[in-house]
Amino acid sequence: MSTPLNEDQIAQLSNHMVEWRRDLHKHAESGWVEFRTSTIVADKLDKLGYELALGRDVIKEESRMGVPSADILAAQEQRALEQGAIAKWMPHFSGGFTGIVATLDSGKAGPTVGVRVDMDALDLQESHACGHVPAECGFESVNTNMTHACGHDGHTSIGLGLAHYLMQNRAQLTGKVKLIFQPAEEGTRGARSMADAGVVDDVDLFAAIHIGTGVPAGEVVCGSENFLATTKFNVEFHGRPSHAGGNPEEGKSAILAAAQATLGLHSISRHSSGASRINVGVINAGTGRNVIAQHAHLEVECRGENNDINDFMFRRSQAVIAGAAAMYEVEYHLDVVGAAKQSVPSAQWVQFITQKATELSCFNQVHEGLGGAAGSEDATYFMERVKQHGGQATYMIFGTELAAGHHNDRFDFNENVMQNALRLLASLAMNAREFNQR
Amino acid sequence: MSTPLNEDQIAQLSNHMVEWRRDLHKHAESGWVEFRTSTIVADKLDKLGYELALGRDVIKEESRMGVPSADILAAQEQRALEQGAIAKWMPHFSGGFTGIVATLDSGKAGPTVGVRVDMDALDLQESHACGHVPAECGFESVNTNMTHACGHDGHTSIGLGLAHYLMQNRAQLTGKVKLIFQPAEEGTRGARSMADAGVVDDVDLFAAIHIGTGVPAGEVVCGSENFLATTKFNVEFHGRPSHAGGNPEEGKSAILAAAQATLGLHSISRHSSGASRINVGVINAGTGRNVIAQHAHLEVECRGENNDINDFMFRRSQAVIAGAAAMYEVEYHLDVVGAAKQSVPSAQWVQFITQKATELSCFNQVHEGLGGAAGSEDATYFMERVKQHGGQATYMIFGTELAAGHHNDRFDFNENVMQNALRLLASLAMNAREFNQR
Amino acid sequence: MSTPLNEDQIAQLSNHMVEWRRDLHKHAESGWVEFRTSTIVADKLDKLGYELALGRDVIKEESRMGVPSADILAAQEQRALEQGAIAKWMPHFSGGFTGIVATLDSGKAGPTVGVRVDMDALDLQESHACGHVPAECGFESVNTNMTHACGHDGHTSIGLGLAHYLMQNRAQLTGKVKLIFQPAEEGTRGARSMADAGVVDDVDLFAAIHIGTGVPAGEVVCGSENFLATTKFNVEFHGRPSHAGGNPEEGKSAILAAAQATLGLHSISRHSSGASRINVGVINAGTGRNVIAQHAHLEVECRGENNDINDFMFRRSQAVIAGAAAMYEVEYHLDVVGAAKQSVPSAQWVQFITQKATELSCFNQVHEGLGGAAGSEDATYFMERVKQHGGQATYMIFGTELAAGHHNDRFDFNENVMQNALRLLASLAMNAREFNQR
Amino acid sequence: MSTPLNEDQIAQLSNHMVEWRRDLHKHAESGWVEFRTSTIVADKLDKLGYELALGRDVIKEESRMGVPSADILAAQEQRALEQGAIAKWMPHFSGGFTGIVATLDSGKAGPTVGVRVDMDALDLQESHACGHVPAECGFESVNTNMTHACGHDGHTSIGLGLAHYLMQNRAQLTGKVKLIFQPAEEGTRGARSMADAGVVDDVDLFAAIHIGTGVPAGEVVCGSENFLATTKFNVEFHGRPSHAGGNPEEGKSAILAAAQATLGLHSISRHSSGASRINVGVINAGTGRNVIAQHAHLEVECRGENNDINDFMFRRSQAVIAGAAAMYEVEYHLDVVGAAKQSVPSAQWVQFITQKATELSCFNQVHEGLGGAAGSEDATYFMERVKQHGGQATYMIFGTELAAGHHNDRFDFNENVMQNALRLLASLAMNAREFNQR
Repeated sequence: MSTPLNEDQIAQLSNHMVEWRRDLHKHAESGWVEFRTSTIVADKLDKLGYELALGRDVIKEESRMGVPSADILAAQEQRALEQGAIAKWMPHFSGGFTGIVATLDSGKAGPTVGVRVDMDALDLQESHACGHVPAECGFESVNTNMTHACGHDGHTSIGLGLAHYLMQNRAQLTGKVKLIFQPAEEGTRGARSMADAGVVDDVDLFAAIHIGTGVPAGEVVCGSENFLATTKFNVEFHGRPSHAGGNPEEGKSAILAAAQATLGLHSISRHSSGASRINVGVINAGTGRNVIAQHAHLEVECRGENNDINDFMFRRSQAVIAGAAAMYEVEYHLDVVGAAKQSVPSAQWVQFITQKATELSCFNQVHEGLGGAAGSEDATYFMERVKQHGGQATYMIFGTELAAGHHNDRFDFNENVMQNALRLLASLAMNAREFNQR
Repeated sequence: MSTPLNEDQIAQLSNHMVEWRRDLHKHAESGWVEFRTSTIVADKLDKLGYELALGRDVIKEESRMGVPSADILAAQEQRALEQGAIAKWMPHFSGGFTGIVATLDSGKAGPTVGVRVDMDALDLQESHACGHVPAECGFESVNTNMTHACGHDGHTSIGLGLAHYLMQNRAQLTGKVKLIFQPAEEGTRGARSMADAGVVDDVDLFAAIHIGTGVPAGEVVCGSENFLATTKFNVEFHGRPSHAGGNPEEGKSAILAAAQATLGLHSISRHSSGASRINVGVINAGTGRNVIAQHAHLEVECRGENNDINDFMFRRSQAVIAGAAAMYEVEYHLDVVGAAKQSVPSAQWVQFITQKATELSCFNQVHEGLGGAAGSEDATYFMERVKQHGGQATYMIFGTELAAGHHNDRFDFNENVMQNALRLLASLAMNAREFNQR
Repeated sequence: MSTPLNEDQIAQLSNHMVEWRRDLHKHAESGWVEFRTSTIVADKLDKLGYELALGRDVIKEESRMGVPSADILAAQEQRALEQGAIAKWMPHFSGGFTGIVATLDSGKAGPTVGVRVDMDALDLQESHACGHVPAECGFESVNTNMTHACGHDGHTSIGLGLAHYLMQNRAQLTGKVKLIFQPAEEGTRGARSMADAGVVDDVDLFAAIHIGTGVPAGEVVCGSENFLATTKFNVEFHGRPSHAGGNPEEGKSAILAAAQATLGLHSISRHSSGASRINVGVINAGTGRNVIAQHAHLEVECRGENNDINDFMFRRSQAVIAGAAAMYEVEYHLDVVGAAKQSVPSAQWVQFITQKATELSCFNQVHEGLGGAAGSEDATYFMERVKQHGGQATYMIFGTELAAGHHNDRFDFNENVMQNALRLLASLAMNAREFNQR
Repeated sequence: MSTPLNEDQIAQLSNHMVEWRRDLHKHAESGWVEFRTSTIVADKLDKLGYELALGRDVIKEESRMGVPSADILAAQEQRALEQGAIAKWMPHFSGGFTGIVATLDSGKAGPTVGVRVDMDALDLQESHACGHVPAECGFESVNTNMTHACGHDGHTSIGLGLAHYLMQNRAQLTGKVKLIFQPAEEGTRGARSMADAGVVDDVDLFAAIHIGTGVPAGEVVCGSENFLATTKFNVEFHGRPSHAGGNPEEGKSAILAAAQATLGLHSISRHSSGASRINVGVINAGTGRNVIAQHAHLEVECRGENNDINDFMFRRSQAVIAGAAAMYEVEYHLDVVGAAKQSVPSAQWVQFITQKATELSCFNQVHEGLGGAAGSEDATYFMERVKQHGGQATYMIFGTELAAGHHNDRFDFNENVMQNALRLLASLAMNAREFNQR
């Protein structure tokens, strides 16, 4: 029989979650520079009494992807301090190691439950448009080109709400809970480094969460599998400049290599075993019309309905780029800046969640699964790692009203969704012992 | 018999030319924003007693190419005023009409001689490297991304030197002299608008000048014809964005259109009647790797050994771009931002200059012509216009040592070259009556 | 209760089917030139007493696709007569109208059952390799570049076997049976013309059949849906030739347009609602290395998991080709030479067939459906037309051993498969009244 | 003082030259299969008393380019024998070694004069059009796809006329004469192999000749330099086939590599030191629209105003092809099938010829040189070799009326041109001693 939730505490924490969310939203920080966010989160968890593992202890350095330059990291650290980052925690996170794992051990037998939330904002300028709630209510982002337009401010707040609730009810808790606060999910850059550090190797039951994504308000998806495996990469072509009028034959055009590569990448074959994607989304190349372009920068991603298809797309991409460089005798550098896997939720664990969600009676509708792939998520790195170690894993989505789509500069969500997310996560953590007894 | 030059005046003016050149170098201004330069030049010429025609009176608005936006023009006007632009002259030049024609009428019979110098700097950040003379001597550019790296500061100073000398010796002058100070030669954007305004229609003998360009120090080329006709244009492709993972089929990729167009442009046929050139020098496109690119910006130029070849290249370019847009169902806009013609110097006038240069005995070597095409020059618009109206025209080059090649951030020249240029131009103006009497 | 089959008749007809199949195999005829095949089939059906509709009565002329030239048709007609085509039937089929519909009306109430078999061979030279049964047993194709390497010789023989069986058992038959012998299925060129002629508009229960396709021997698929909608088209680019050394600028290269189009076609976006395909499979262009190519011929196909996706692919293809032609200022002609739709089998009819197949006990395994798309089939035109008119339709596959894959020059199948196909089709026709009574 | 020509002999030989030319025209033979031509030429020269070097003695096997397959060579040898080839000479030429060097040593001091004529026809079907003289006069080519549409039948006849004249006047001859009959000039495939065999290493004064090429009738060009260096090459891309619907990802498309390579080749940069050319003139690729193309065949040529430019174009071509193959992971083979150099005529020798031509008074106009490049000629291999060994070399053009341009199927020339060519070549050979005495 499930332990009932303490609705008074839930109500109180709901107010806090709104407050935290708005503070995080106002001080939105992009991937790997969540210095204010991570120091504040760490401080709160520490004060609650969680056992903390921070920074390099939970992030494998060489597994990070798409990390900004040292200059930018240093400047952002400074910026964060000026905006209220808590200096005493900074040494742990300095240099782009903005990850946190908080553990609560009940001392009683029971499974280890892991919950992952992400903390980063998007590289996007927030809208100042009339009617955009964060602007009207005074919590729009103060940071240029950094906006919580994907709801991670909500995720972090839910994580904090859950941390409070579990500590308040630790007497009833069994087993262990690990709360994972991940950096740099945007661009799928951060999860691999935490998974590679082994932070979920002892987790029996794992859940990552997201709000919104088109799921109607009041509904929950207990085992979403609509993710494509993906590899995100940048390509730099380095040619040789020359004057386009005077001695064009001495140039080696990075732009021609980029053009051939672009067409070559988009001509990679479809795959008979499922959906694939390829996109050259950005090209920045050349310095002037009268100069054979020395440099071209491309931002590319490929995806696949399963990991094999994505591997095929990426392997072919590498050949295309090497060949295009060879055609124009230019040098190139390919840098993987993000990656995610496809991962299928564990059926038994999803059924358990479905049952708990139904029991809660707070959802209009409870979906076991959801098809129709589209985006990518690096929580899949955690999921695959958990399953490799014998655990079970899932990805949950909490539906809510959206003011505009994800990654739109007017994105906003109905904060009520955080309550239901807290309820279900709390219920799972408090009752996880049931799962093992089944 | 030629009137001998007054070498005392030449010596004095040489000192002034160095002084003026360094001031202009320090306050380098790019094309169409030469507000400080033009107000100062106008003021000096006015004080000398020249009859001035300014701004819209010498620049045909619709013939200007590559003019910055109104915002930039306004900001630069402000910047210029803060740097010493003379406010009373500003109304003439405001809005990017930074051209000057100064006339001196001797009142005596004789041909009208026109001399064109250009005033604009390059969009380039000047080097701070050790050994770079402008930096070491304190006259490096104070303006970000604006540098006199092509010697136009020298040209303007020579023009001012010539203005002084002729006024000082007006008693001996015959006919008329028109001194033309042109904006925006870089990118070949300015000359057409002044030629179209008719400023050289009454010129009998025309000369444009350049220093450097690889001609050895102490030498002069009296009739350079190493110019290619050119058209400079930008292309904007406007597609439709969509999420590259979620609904790629809804996108219309401006990047794919740009890639096809780039290869198509570079595949335009060689021409059997002479040299041609094509270069896509800049591509900036797209906003993120996971978005089908909505927009692509290309900077392109074509050239031809004669005007027909360049017309062929540009006509074919337009077809290529229209076709590439059609392939991907994207909109496009093609904007001509610069143009120059090929123009052959007038043989008789070149021979006269060659004779005068030889008589001066100040040049190590006097070349009648120079082959081996390469760059482009919009002075050709003046040359063609003069010839159409029955006059004769040429383009002269004064050799000098260069610290680094033109358009290099460490470009610098030996200021002594200005003396010789002054001598020959003064000699031509003072003795032009001889040409008609031959 | 199902009428049991007469196994003696089945056994006898099996021998005949082998005999017919080998004769057809030896005289393999490609699409639209099945003159010998169609006259022999018509003659047999006529002698059996079927009511025949032939040629232009069952083929809508303007709906035919990929028909050979009049010259080729005339020569092939001649060839057929020399190989035993029956001259009296030739006028019906002359000019490429090689379709037959044979009707047997029981005079009793009951549904109209339609069965479609195809008669054409592939444009392929048959193998003479050691071990290739048709070669070893003396029935390899006598026609150059025409080979039954897809099993349509078997299909036609099954159709004839069924025709015999039903006539032999017409007393027990209820309703009507329409046997459709279709030309030019290869390249998906023929079905549309027969469907457009209305030949299945009165059919209540429709089945098209295929043997092999990877289904294991002894098994049957009652409702295969693994077909992609497709459009097959040729493109001719017509440029202007010129000497590549002497005056390249006068040429308009059809080869450059073809290259650009090829990359453009392969860069058409994936579709989020399902699988798509594109392939430029053939290019033949140009006459000599020193001539700007005047002409280029491309053979292309696109496919889609559903009709909308295929329509998207074809619409985009048209834009790509028009744009590529515009880039190089060449003319083009796009000719659709084949097409097929995606069509989902009717569930109720498939269940009925599944039940009948199971009752027969002659199959090792009976599959209701089969996923995993790949090829295309123009029988889908019949299926869609039947369903539009309120009928039910399916596509059945009879598994068998294959000596080599379909379209391979050593393709051969185990002739025993024809017996089981005859059994199930006969059973369906004889018991179709049960379906309506359900 | 020049020896005057014997005009009676010239008149008689003119009739013979017409007769020989028409016989050669009727039995036109393409490059490397000039079996009838070479055996007949050898036989005539032998009977005249020339010292002969034949076949492998004058052709370096590994330097031949674009030689047909052994099968074709054998079949053509048979064809030639049936058309009157002289069997006793065949062993020398068998296998595609159809070159002849005939030497006449006067026994007196004097320079060695070399004259090269070519013997091959084009791979072209001759016109049967009304008004085409060879057709109307009964000497149109009897060989399918072999036509003398470039005038080499005339060249060979001039060579034979010269051989007769010199032997008839050997008493007055000084020095030595070497008459070189070259195979396979079309496609610039043959000269390299004879030059590499050393046949002109002892030649002091060398002349190759051509008729027509746009030079007006009655005029002569003594030192033509309008040739571009060239490299002709074929490319074979070998990919991996797969079904375009079923498993496209298993294919490696030779067509995509070919398309990418074609655009890449045409995007090779212009060269600032002179004219360049590139053309992909032929693509044949793929077997069917539903198969990923396994094979693609390209025929390509590049050219350059000088050898360095052509080397640049070819070097870049190789990189482009290797890169395109790498992009699609296909194998490739690049085969050089023809080549010619640029070669500047020797000034002194050209002046001597100009003087002799002027003295003859049979030309309307005598041109020393001719600019305006266009085609390519492998006689340049001989010219460069002669100059490397200290001799002087030139290329002469004899103007004539043309019925249609070179390589047109209605090409024909006014046979009178052969007389003037004979006169000038005879005059040069008979008076060559003057050159050395100057």
